[in-house]
Amino acid sequence: MIYIGAEIFIEPGQTAAEINGWFETMSRHGMKLTRIRMFENYMHKDGVWDFSLFDIAFIAAEKHGVLIYANLFPDTGFDDVGGFKFCRDDAHLASVANYIKHLVIHFSDFSSLYGWVPINEPGLGAMPDDELAANHFKLWKSELAANEYTSNGFTTFDLAEERFLLHYNTWFLKWLTEEIRKYDPIRPIHVNNHDIFKHAAEYDFPAWREFLSSLGGSAHASWHFDYFNREQYAVGMSANAEMLRSGAGDLPWFMTELQGGNNTYSGKTPLCPTAAEIAQWLWINIGSGSKGGMFWCLNPRRSGFEAGEWGMLDYLDEPTDRVQMAGAISAAIDRHERLVDDAVVLDSGLSVIYTRESLWIEKLLQIKSSHFEGRAVGGIMKSALAYFEALSEMGVHAAFQEIGEYDFSLANYTGKAIILAHQVSIPSKYWNLLSEFIYKGGKLIVDGLTAYYDENAYLIQGAQFPLRECFGAVVREFKLVNDVYKVGFTDPLLSVDAHLWKGILKLDTAVSVAREKDETLACRNTYGAGSVLWMPSLIGLGGRITYYSGLCKLLSSELYGIIAELPVKFSRRQPGMLMKVLKNEGHFITVMVNKSGADVRLELDVPTLKLAQVVFSSIDPTGKRSEAIEPFTNRGTVMVAAEETLVLKWVRL
Amino acid sequence: MIYIGAEIFIEPGQTAAEINGWFETMSRHGMKLTRIRMFENYMHKDGVWDFSLFDIAFIAAEKHGVLIYANLFPDTGFDDVGGFKFCRDDAHLASVANYIKHLVIHFSDFSSLYGWVPINEPGLGAMPDDELAANHFKLWKSELAANEYTSNGFTTFDLAEERFLLHYNTWFLKWLTEEIRKYDPIRPIHVNNHDIFKHAAEYDFPAWREFLSSLGGSAHASWHFDYFNREQYAVGMSANAEMLRSGAGDLPWFMTELQGGNNTYSGKTPLCPTAAEIAQWLWINIGSGSKGGMFWCLNPRRSGFEAGEWGMLDYLDEPTDRVQMAGAISAAIDRHERLVDDAVVLDSGLSVIYTRESLWIEKLLQIKSSHFEGRAVGGIMKSALAYFEALSEMGVHAAFQEIGEYDFSLANYTGKAIILAHQVSIPSKYWNLLSEFIYKGGKLIVDGLTAYYDENAYLIQGAQFPLRECFGAVVREFKLVNDVYKVGFTDPLLSVDAHLWKGILKLDTAVSVAREKDETLACRNTYGAGSVLWMPSLIGLGGRITYYSGLCKLLSSELYGIIAELPVKFSRRQPGMLMKVLKNEGHFITVMVNKSGADVRLELDVPTLKLAQVVFSSIDPTGKRSEAIEPFTNRGTVMVAAEETLVLKWVRL
Amino acid sequence: MIYIGAEIFIEPGQTAAEINGWFETMSRHGMKLTRIRMFENYMHKDGVWDFSLFDIAFIAAEKHGVLIYANLFPDTGFDDVGGFKFCRDDAHLASVANYIKHLVIHFSDFSSLYGWVPINEPGLGAMPDDELAANHFKLWKSELAANEYTSNGFTTFDLAEERFLLHYNTWFLKWLTEEIRKYDPIRPIHVNNHDIFKHAAEYDFPAWREFLSSLGGSAHASWHFDYFNREQYAVGMSANAEMLRSGAGDLPWFMTELQGGNNTYSGKTPLCPTAAEIAQWLWINIGSGSKGGMFWCLNPRRSGFEAGEWGMLDYLDEPTDRVQMAGAISAAIDRHERLVDDAVVLDSGLSVIYTRESLWIEKLLQIKSSHFEGRAVGGIMKSALAYFEALSEMGVHAAFQEIGEYDFSLANYTGKAIILAHQVSIPSKYWNLLSEFIYKGGKLIVDGLTAYYDENAYLIQGAQFPLRECFGAVVREFKLVNDVYKVGFTDPLLSVDAHLWKGILKLDTAVSVAREKDETLACRNTYGAGSVLWMPSLIGLGGRITYYSGLCKLLSSELYGIIAELPVKFSRRQPGMLMKVLKNEGHFITVMVNKSGADVRLELDVPTLKLAQVVFSSIDPTGKRSEAIEPFTNRGTVMVAAEETLVLKWVRL
Repeated sequence: MIYIGAEIFIEPGQTAAEINGWFETMSRHGMKLTRIRMFENYMHKDGVWDFSLFDIAFIAAEKHGVLIYANLFPDTGFDDVGGFKFCRDDAHLASVANYIKHLVIHFSDFSSLYGWVPINEPGLGAMPDDELAANHFKLWKSELAANEYTSNGFTTFDLAEERFLLHYNTWFLKWLTEEIRKYDPIRPIHVNNHDIFKHAAEYDFPAWREFLSSLGGSAHASWHFDYFNREQYAVGMSANAEMLRSGAGDLPWFMTELQGGNNTYSGKTPLCPTAAEIAQWLWINIGSGSKGGMFWCLNPRRSGFEAGEWGMLDYLDEPTDRVQMAGAISAAIDRHERLVDDAVVLDSGLSVIYTRESLWIEKLLQIKSSHFEGRAVGGIMKSALAYFEALSEMGVHAAFQEIGEYDFSLANYTGKAIILAHQVSIPSKYWNLLSEFIYKGGKLIVDGLTAYYDENAYLIQGAQFPLRECFGAVVREFKLVNDVYKVGFTDPLLSVDAHLWKGILKLDTAVSVAREKDETLACRNTYGAGSVLWMPSLIGLGGRITYYSGLCKLLSSELYGIIAELPVKFSRRQPGMLMKVLKNEGHFITVMVNKSGADVRLELDVPTLKLAQVVFSSIDPTGKRSEAIEPFTNRGTVMVAAEETLVLKWVRL
Repeated sequence: MIYIGAEIFIEPGQTAAEINGWFETMSRHGMKLTRIRMFENYMHKDGVWDFSLFDIAFIAAEKHGVLIYANLFPDTGFDDVGGFKFCRDDAHLASVANYIKHLVIHFSDFSSLYGWVPINEPGLGAMPDDELAANHFKLWKSELAANEYTSNGFTTFDLAEERFLLHYNTWFLKWLTEEIRKYDPIRPIHVNNHDIFKHAAEYDFPAWREFLSSLGGSAHASWHFDYFNREQYAVGMSANAEMLRSGAGDLPWFMTELQGGNNTYSGKTPLCPTAAEIAQWLWINIGSGSKGGMFWCLNPRRSGFEAGEWGMLDYLDEPTDRVQMAGAISAAIDRHERLVDDAVVLDSGLSVIYTRESLWIEKLLQIKSSHFEGRAVGGIMKSALAYFEALSEMGVHAAFQEIGEYDFSLANYTGKAIILAHQVSIPSKYWNLLSEFIYKGGKLIVDGLTAYYDENAYLIQGAQFPLRECFGAVVREFKLVNDVYKVGFTDPLLSVDAHLWKGILKLDTAVSVAREKDETLACRNTYGAGSVLWMPSLIGLGGRITYYSGLCKLLSSELYGIIAELPVKFSRRQPGMLMKVLKNEGHFITVMVNKSGADVRLELDVPTLKLAQVVFSSIDPTGKRSEAIEPFTNRGTVMVAAEETLVLKWVRL
Repeated sequence: MIYIGAEIFIEPGQTAAEINGWFETMSRHGMKLTRIRMFENYMHKDGVWDFSLFDIAFIAAEKHGVLIYANLFPDTGFDDVGGFKFCRDDAHLASVANYIKHLVIHFSDFSSLYGWVPINEPGLGAMPDDELAANHFKLWKSELAANEYTSNGFTTFDLAEERFLLHYNTWFLKWLTEEIRKYDPIRPIHVNNHDIFKHAAEYDFPAWREFLSSLGGSAHASWHFDYFNREQYAVGMSANAEMLRSGAGDLPWFMTELQGGNNTYSGKTPLCPTAAEIAQWLWINIGSGSKGGMFWCLNPRRSGFEAGEWGMLDYLDEPTDRVQMAGAISAAIDRHERLVDDAVVLDSGLSVIYTRESLWIEKLLQIKSSHFEGRAVGGIMKSALAYFEALSEMGVHAAFQEIGEYDFSLANYTGKAIILAHQVSIPSKYWNLLSEFIYKGGKLIVDGLTAYYDENAYLIQGAQFPLRECFGAVVREFKLVNDVYKVGFTDPLLSVDAHLWKGILKLDTAVSVAREKDETLACRNTYGAGSVLWMPSLIGLGGRITYYSGLCKLLSSELYGIIAELPVKFSRRQPGMLMKVLKNEGHFITVMVNKSGADVRLELDVPTLKLAQVVFSSIDPTGKRSEAIEPFTNRGTVMVAAEETLVLKWVRL
């Protein structure tokens, strides 16, 4: 079931009529799921529990057929915008447990209760400075098994706080869910991480799967997308969605918070989403497997930080064009219910992979210095994003995954590729897994200073480089060159921009594919049934700085065998275009978004499908736009207007 | 009596001959008032009081006919450039009281003593972190009456520290004056605030009036004018002067500190004033009602911070061209003594109004984010300044006032206008006062996010908007658009630049005056005998960014009825020109300043006056420049040279 | 003896084979001196001393004929990159003394031990915040003699912490050497300061001479050269070298650390040195009298900060082109052993002088403000550098000295010149010394706000200016003008750019040489047998901002008499070219470096010498480049390729 919804913000001072009105509006626009912050501050005073304010909402929800995710929000200060992330001591834990008990018991009676969100946006960015964390840290350290891998006996950083934080986030989340489960063993439990491009290294999604019913996230353009400019928010949303899809694994996932309205004083890069962006964000998530999407928020809060901001409704409680658009999408999905509901993401076989340890080490080694994008915080993540974005301009939909989320258990990796872009740390436990991935037919693309360190910030380059056999070469040294420089390949059609450092290779079994004077700058090695393309220069980030034309050519050539097998992709690079593909038995759904700034005549490479139907178009959201789609040819030419989100259904020829 | 003067800085090491020489120089250049920092450190050591160093100065002053403002400066560190702003505990209070006792008793014997300045530049920018403040805060809170207005019962910020600081500044100032009054019940007491564009929200000038004899200020270009560039320092000075004039109310006021000389290491935007600037700054203040002006300082201090800086004299104790200019102005005023001394500011009927609460909330809600001028600290004040500056380019002289300084007690506001530019908070007690102002014939211009919040940062926009009846409309929502965008009015001649957000209106009784597609961006409402022009976009700040041409046209049109009645104004917009107008019975004095960068042939609209005399010209400061003023015509054409300050006397036709 | 070397970084995890291999490689490339960090952490655990890891290195050194500077590195954290700079308390001192005892006794047995470096890079930039420093500060203050000079009795800053830090650095260094001397009375003791353009005011080199055997330094382009851009690193190295040469006095000196390899995350302005830069840096130091040079480091450390960085060897332990270049230089020196080893710097008679007190006061008076280079930290040092750089473009090699290092004891200063560029503080003890320097025939060039303050930040400008008689003038005042403005001299060929402030002079005996309207901006005074050129504007910094053409002309003219006597210099200004000159009995060695970006046909003014031999060329490092040097003429025309370092031997005609 796909749900479009928006959070209803409940605070004292609101009238029952207002609250009822919001549910009525939701319902009228096909928004059937909401989320409510269950402020302890507004239901528990001086030991007395009074749920009446929130009861009004739950009753209204029942009346209007709206379901509610109840979001725990234990006692905290009025100026705490997002809620605390950890309890500070045992008394605090007890207080939260008591709140959960009262809350869950009371609200479980409502049929409008859909499920629980145990905490808003876990993830702090750093180790909490309190007693509970200190105690847990001590305990955790005492229980650590001796590490079998010791970086050849060198003294190293231990990165214990980073590792602990990963564990501690999981522990706290699990503790919260267990407290809920004492009183409600059944309903879904969902959690929304946030600021994922910065916080990813703090989240152990695979560990969360065992106690969550579904994974979610907050992906607010104005808070979380500073690695992107506004034209890139769509592809940023696509990457964010893929990170959640990968994190969820076999669980369902659902985008919990999308920006619904204007910023005044809040938001790091303030904006007001357009209706077109509402459509783009919703469909990109759905096209990435999300079971819908929810906006923050329906009604703007009236007081404090964010007063009058973020709302889908205007100050008169009337629906804005953003609500209209969300409603139209809900209606379109209803019209195509069986098609969309059961669809799953078409796996392209391509995975852009990041490692937590790279993010930890990048942060650890920062000093105050001249700014170079590649060595500032963000260099790691943006390098990975670069390949995701370049593929996106080719109409190819890669997975975006932490290395621990990748399935290394298959017997055959033919048709699979992994891209490791400037992932400076490859932990030792993955060295064999990566070798085997290649040996069993996988294709590996390696960029930048990938595998410079092990998990302890110990240099693994050199004669003993653990991937030497599999990569067929070693790095002589890395040299800082310039902000942007060219790497020319042996294939005269291939020339790419690179950033900052070049790595110079010494070949064992690999063959050179890029050379500068007597230096080899890239090589290819066949290993077992697979192969490695190793480019120890920051080609991803260089491409990101200069807009990808060289990188797309390189990837087209390099990944030809895999991409050619995809049922639908762009015939050539289309800057600013994006396509997600869902599959439902014999049907395919394509979600196309045009951020190029102009109307685009898009040529698809779609040899085995034919167009069946327009599912949705944001430029004619309530109708069934079709006239602009030309009679089906082998190439599949589609006109997509500037800013349009176009959703098409295809069937096999 | 108008006084031109400069502070004499007394420190140990100076010789009696030097000190005498400074007073002699002052006197010779018509500078008859000085101010001296009465350093306790230099008169009180180990319990022994020795006033001899300062006695030399007071005796010299008597000899040379110079009067002295004695500025209290209790014991503090050598590196405390401006003096402490509050006592830290009761012992500190007692120590200051003891100092005041000794100081006031001793120096009251000198006939050269003119009056007292109880503290230098009160205003800290934040709550002091000490015992005395904490105790007073506690007491103040305990005595607070329950607030009758509760923001509809919503939980809100309380802004208690900001409110307390306002009270506490007044309390401390009053305590100091009471200590002085124990020993000198008669002489004037004067105080100089500072950095007023940043500190305004900390000063309760109306409350100060009950214990001060006159209000003053420090307006140092290099420290305090960072909302302006150098060409704008003249209009910045004009706004600063108007804030003091409004603060003083019926009391006299006097500009206590103007930059007198060069910066080396001090000053946020270092400079050395030109002689032309000396004339501009003095006359702009006098033209705003100041009873003269004093420079910081005559002789540069010799040691520590500011050593060798800020002086009107050079290192040889010879007068610079800055002293010559100040002396020439003093002489010109002497020649026209009756005319200038008794003159009062001609009230234009126009008031640009800011609210303290807007400044508090703007500061409270700041986060680290992308820079947009409108939502950074300064957005509120610069929005108000924008209208003041635009009017200034029209030769119109508006008042610049905190809303609490405005006289809402009149029976008829015909011919009066108030401009509320992006004043995000309008406290509840002013809602009715503003409605009545309009109802009784006043004209209100409303810009930006004015009245977004009440005094508790609670959103008052919406269906229940408290000014809905009077404004005849409500805002649907605000949307962030861009750094600069256009707002086109129904009147095809009117088109203005706006900044950041647009507000979209829903009209009740108002009529649309600016529209974009189907959205109303500005409206006009008639209410009782008055009217409101509501433009919920940042048109002031947009104009400030793009140099006002659209905004001046809009204001010319909108305020035509009021401006037409003024006896003298520019015939059309004159960028870089500024005019202040004084009135003395049948005579008018115009102070014109040319910051346009070129000589200007200025056309005045002056139908009822004729030119009588040149009072002063900075390009011929000792003579009586007249040749450049053309025979009087109905239009009054005047040549004003680049950088010139020209003071003219007019009589009725 | 000239040594070329590189630090070998020893850490647990390395194998004996690796360590041996590094010494073998050193030896093979003529690198006969290394330096090793003697980590207490790696030899002392739980009270047990185990030197075996380091013994491997010392034995390998013996085997391969390499000498070792043992660098003390007492117990500290793994994340302490450079080592602590002071002990924190008496227990810490005792612990360090115990470490020294064990260390020195053990390693004194090795014949490969060359000498000791008691601490790595002393100099903290600020007073340490610990018990030991506090106690020493108290003691030091109590023992201070009353200062006879009191700034005319004015209250002043006391700058006691700055003065103490100077003393305390010396004290700690001396304490360390005394501890070493308890167990090794013979071997050389060497110390390397660092970041000298920022830390110079913390070092009392003349006081160090009494316990050091030689002075050294760290001059890392990526950490220490932010007053320069990459093209200027050569001249920056030249200035750094001159500061050490001056600091060393009659002691030998040796450049202890030069950047040997690439930066990844470390370095404020990261880079990878080219082989050409390796040659430039080594020869510039040798040409400034350094007994060779050592690189940081041979083998990159493998773990933690700097892992994989800075190395001269690549990750395969093979020599890079940087090692090849160093080896070629070593070989060239071997070929010319007697010539180079005994050569001394040819003294040009020109000294650019800075004062510690100027640097202290500049730092003390900083506030958060608009950026102007002349008043930000760096203004003092860059002003001095400007004259050094301008002379360098003329092929003239000035000394660069702290004023306390200058020899004021001569009887005759004919042929000597001192340049005081914007040295805002001239301590009182130098007033007479400077006067006598001029009186005895010296030439003084005075720029900017030189002698604005005494040593207490007390203004000494004015009628009583202590250098008035000798300078023949006084400053009326300084006025801030602009970022860059012109100063035109009476000589119509001379016009220079100046920065920020102009000083206006009143002449006594001096004659005006630069005038603007009725203001004198520069003057010349004859005093005894010498003369002063006083230009109280920032002409050095102005020149630095706009590339020196005016300043070089001015210096050519002003210093004609002195420069004409030099045996070799450029015929005219050569931007980007640099030349150092050594002398060895009848022979001269010129080191020329071309940073102009293009090949240059360089014309020398060399009337009394003829070219004898090419000692070294970096574009043909192993051969004997000669073809590009034209048959000797009176002018001596030499082709120098872009980036080339060319070393020539000359004999008298």
